[in-house]
Amino acid sequence: MTGLTYKSTGVDPSRADDALAQVRARIAKTRRPEVIGDVGSFGGLFASPGADMVLVATTDGVGTKLDLARLLDRHEVVGTDLVHHCVNDAMAMGAEPLFFLDYFSTSRIDPAVFARVVGAMADACSAHRCALLGGETAEMPGTYGVGAYDLAGFLVGAVRRDAILDPKKVVAGDVCIGVPSSGLHTNGYTLARAIVARAAAAQGKDMLAVLDAPRQDLGGSTLGDALLRTHSSYLAAFRALREATTIRSIAHLTGGGWEGNLPRALPAGLGAVIDRTAWRVPPIFDVLAELGRVPDEDQWDTWNMGIGLVVIVPAADADAALGALPEAVIVGRVERARHDERRIRFA
Amino acid sequence: MTGLTYKSTGVDPSRADDALAQVRARIAKTRRPEVIGDVGSFGGLFASPGADMVLVATTDGVGTKLDLARLLDRHEVVGTDLVHHCVNDAMAMGAEPLFFLDYFSTSRIDPAVFARVVGAMADACSAHRCALLGGETAEMPGTYGVGAYDLAGFLVGAVRRDAILDPKKVVAGDVCIGVPSSGLHTNGYTLARAIVARAAAAQGKDMLAVLDAPRQDLGGSTLGDALLRTHSSYLAAFRALREATTIRSIAHLTGGGWEGNLPRALPAGLGAVIDRTAWRVPPIFDVLAELGRVPDEDQWDTWNMGIGLVVIVPAADADAALGALPEAVIVGRVERARHDERRIRFA
Repeated sequence: MTGLTYKSTGVDPSRADDALAQVRARIAKTRRPEVIGDVGSFGGLFASPGADMVLVATTDGVGTKLDLARLLDRHEVVGTDLVHHCVNDAMAMGAEPLFFLDYFSTSRIDPAVFARVVGAMADACSAHRCALLGGETAEMPGTYGVGAYDLAGFLVGAVRRDAILDPKKVVAGDVCIGVPSSGLHTNGYTLARAIVARAAAAQGKDMLAVLDAPRQDLGGSTLGDALLRTHSSYLAAFRALREATTIRSIAHLTGGGWEGNLPRALPAGLGAVIDRTAWRVPPIFDVLAELGRVPDEDQWDTWNMGIGLVVIVPAADADAALGALPEAVIVGRVERARHDERRIRFA
Repeated sequence: MTGLTYKSTGVDPSRADDALAQVRARIAKTRRPEVIGDVGSFGGLFASPGADMVLVATTDGVGTKLDLARLLDRHEVVGTDLVHHCVNDAMAMGAEPLFFLDYFSTSRIDPAVFARVVGAMADACSAHRCALLGGETAEMPGTYGVGAYDLAGFLVGAVRRDAILDPKKVVAGDVCIGVPSSGLHTNGYTLARAIVARAAAAQGKDMLAVLDAPRQDLGGSTLGDALLRTHSSYLAAFRALREATTIRSIAHLTGGGWEGNLPRALPAGLGAVIDRTAWRVPPIFDVLAELGRVPDEDQWDTWNMGIGLVVIVPAADADAALGALPEAVIVGRVERARHDERRIRFA
């Protein structure tokens, strides 16, 4: 009987080190003046902002979009997605990003895949002047299928205490400014994948063939491309609106779609009436809905339907908002909500 | 053909809400005065410490100890472990904990299991005066086997700028104070599980029978109990040593064992000589090593071998350290390291 070693059981800590070495230079570029010390310590160090500031912390994953990224060999997308998702969530409280950490978990690290995912995170952090301050890489043999991995991101931002976005400031009559999404972002992919799988079965093809086929109803694009668009970062849009208007509150439309997210930006007793003719729902949503015969309410409770961010401003600021952000549209208005009803009403 | 909905594909956001509702009161108890606002926002708010402070951020998982906890229905252990692991890592930089966030990912949320895991996290946060500021719960059908889940934790602590523990301050002759571990903590479980599986196969039993059998070589305890001891929190030990001594640096002995962690608390050019007779390696390590015929070096490169924390202090402070922390032992001494060799030498 030979002896057991950690390596013989499928775990090799040097694999994580090798993978990390490939992206060290890109991680180093995310450094900000507040970062103290070097990678390799037990915790990342970041000089505290002053006591007039409030820290905003958020954690997110990218869900089963991971499976599509893997199937289509587009690992960079989910790395970027994770950073953007976190940046947007912190921003929904009014914050600018400070630093980010990631958790990468898999059965056996593939250094090439790891470098593509974490490299993309590092680049997205750089683009947002956000330090990639640390991370954890876990090899858990047996937990994940071959090649599968899971990702979690953690971001800390900061906002001046008097600039925290507080839904309590919203009043009836305020205007909902919608900012377009690039597609599903990182939500509703289990439904999207089930739809693609059903379409594949109906056509006697495999999923990859369905994902890779150019489609007229997507303007010649493929389902795969439409589904693997990067989750939009709204930081630039937020800054433009912050300059031009008084932002009352922000909803980042992620898991749970409209009803699951817009009420989080509203005080108790208020809802919103949304005019769905104010923008054109992007073709990817219509294609998925048709292929899967998805009921209307389920679409709007699952996906963002083309609007990834809703910024609530006083009615008097509506024109200024549209002037500052040409791609934005007025999607609706805040109104009194009836008790025990859905708070988002579509008109 | 019936229409597809998000629920019909196995994802039900209300399950996460229900599960969370069960632990809301325990999460509320983790609140500190710095916490602003309520749960349910896009990000958690925490008043920034002053600009004389440095934030310390860390992320960790609990690895395949999760599988054992599941097999033995001891889900609380891994929740507590995750918080303690993060607290210890931030503390290794000199920091006290401020707030914690968790990521819980599974194929289908079992609200009872979720409540036990996250409830234990909340209690561990309370015990450390650490706010449980937020979390993400992901349902990813197909990613995990039935009942399996993964956990990641993120913790932010703070340390006065002049109190950051810096390995560069360590000099040859400094003393290594060891603080006992409760067992494997959260590292080397893939190896431990492989050993138990091999023992089960050799005895013609299933793993559970081997884990549940009382053993003389464990003083009547079972392998399952010995393997599911909680990862020790060293915050109280750290505070006691900080009062009584000048702490130069700290190594939290986790993945990679002694050679993988103690050098992280030492500057380039220095190593440590460790006297392995200074403490008694707990029986669980000997039992595992014997059952698995694990080579000596692999044991020490994988497990903590009974010492979970090494605190490096000036030689003149050694007596004060032992006086302040009766369970501590002097395990070794810092020495010059030869180039290109292992930095931890066992004498």
